[in-house]
Amino acid sequence: MTPPVVSIVAKSGTGKTTLLEKLIAELKRRGYKVGAVKHDAHSFSIDHEGKDSWRLTRAGADTTLITSPEKIAMVKQNPRDQEPPLSENIANYCADLDIVLTEGFKRSSMPKIEVHRRERSERLLCRGEADDPTLIAVASDSALELDVPVYQINDAAGLCDLIVARFLS
Amino acid sequence: MTPPVVSIVAKSGTGKTTLLEKLIAELKRRGYKVGAVKHDAHSFSIDHEGKDSWRLTRAGADTTLITSPEKIAMVKQNPRDQEPPLSENIANYCADLDIVLTEGFKRSSMPKIEVHRRERSERLLCRGEADDPTLIAVASDSALELDVPVYQINDAAGLCDLIVARFLS
Repeated sequence: MTPPVVSIVAKSGTGKTTLLEKLIAELKRRGYKVGAVKHDAHSFSIDHEGKDSWRLTRAGADTTLITSPEKIAMVKQNPRDQEPPLSENIANYCADLDIVLTEGFKRSSMPKIEVHRRERSERLLCRGEADDPTLIAVASDSALELDVPVYQINDAAGLCDLIVARFLS
Repeated sequence: MTPPVVSIVAKSGTGKTTLLEKLIAELKRRGYKVGAVKHDAHSFSIDHEGKDSWRLTRAGADTTLITSPEKIAMVKQNPRDQEPPLSENIANYCADLDIVLTEGFKRSSMPKIEVHRRERSERLLCRGEADDPTLIAVASDSALELDVPVYQINDAAGLCDLIVARFLS
């Protein structure tokens, strides 16, 4: 069993992470186990230079785990720099969760909520030249006329109602 | 199929991480896929304050993944601050590897290599009041008379020969 996945997409600089933080906090308040997945196109850095776990990864470990009573951290190198599909990562690392929210992955076939700010762009990523059929809602700072529900950009409670109704009921 | 596991143990300040780095590099040179597991009794910090992934974890995500073409990073909170057994973590996160080396876990039943420096302590952790039957070798800066093979403390190649012969042949 893999949990449902909803992707939060937006043009860059629109505030995806801020909305995602609010959605995670709201879903946690409602008692759900929540996962968050962020895609990084670049060679991101995690861990702190000089720490033991960093040294083990630098020495060449294909996978480094740090375990503690509170949490587990993992850094796993992809063979041949081939990123596994999102669905495979969710099956492998998120099977114990109720719902997963992703940041980005705008070309995936997962259901999407688009974050929109008028001053950033008049147009939506998922509505324009080609409509993205996986768009389920928009969070915007403007009144928009669309074929999907439009929520106020800060309305985490409303968006959670939608997520719960669609995927967790 | 889970990979074999060898624990590198020592009294604190003996240089476990340094030896582990050398063993990882040597096993990689020989073509093996290597995992490293470090136990942290405290609330370790990984990730960089202020980064998006850090924000998602702080917002309450039970699991945060960061994916890229090169690697995947995960931070997973343990339910009720209950650390899963080492064997479970290895089955979940290291099944794609040939061998896993751990730092610490001196009370586990995994095969162990003890690192020893005379100036740190005359006595071994795994030989003394009670002999630990899981000890397979010692890496020491001193000549010791023991019931298991003793390697020079920097002899990563010799220790890898032993690991390969015992677990990878």
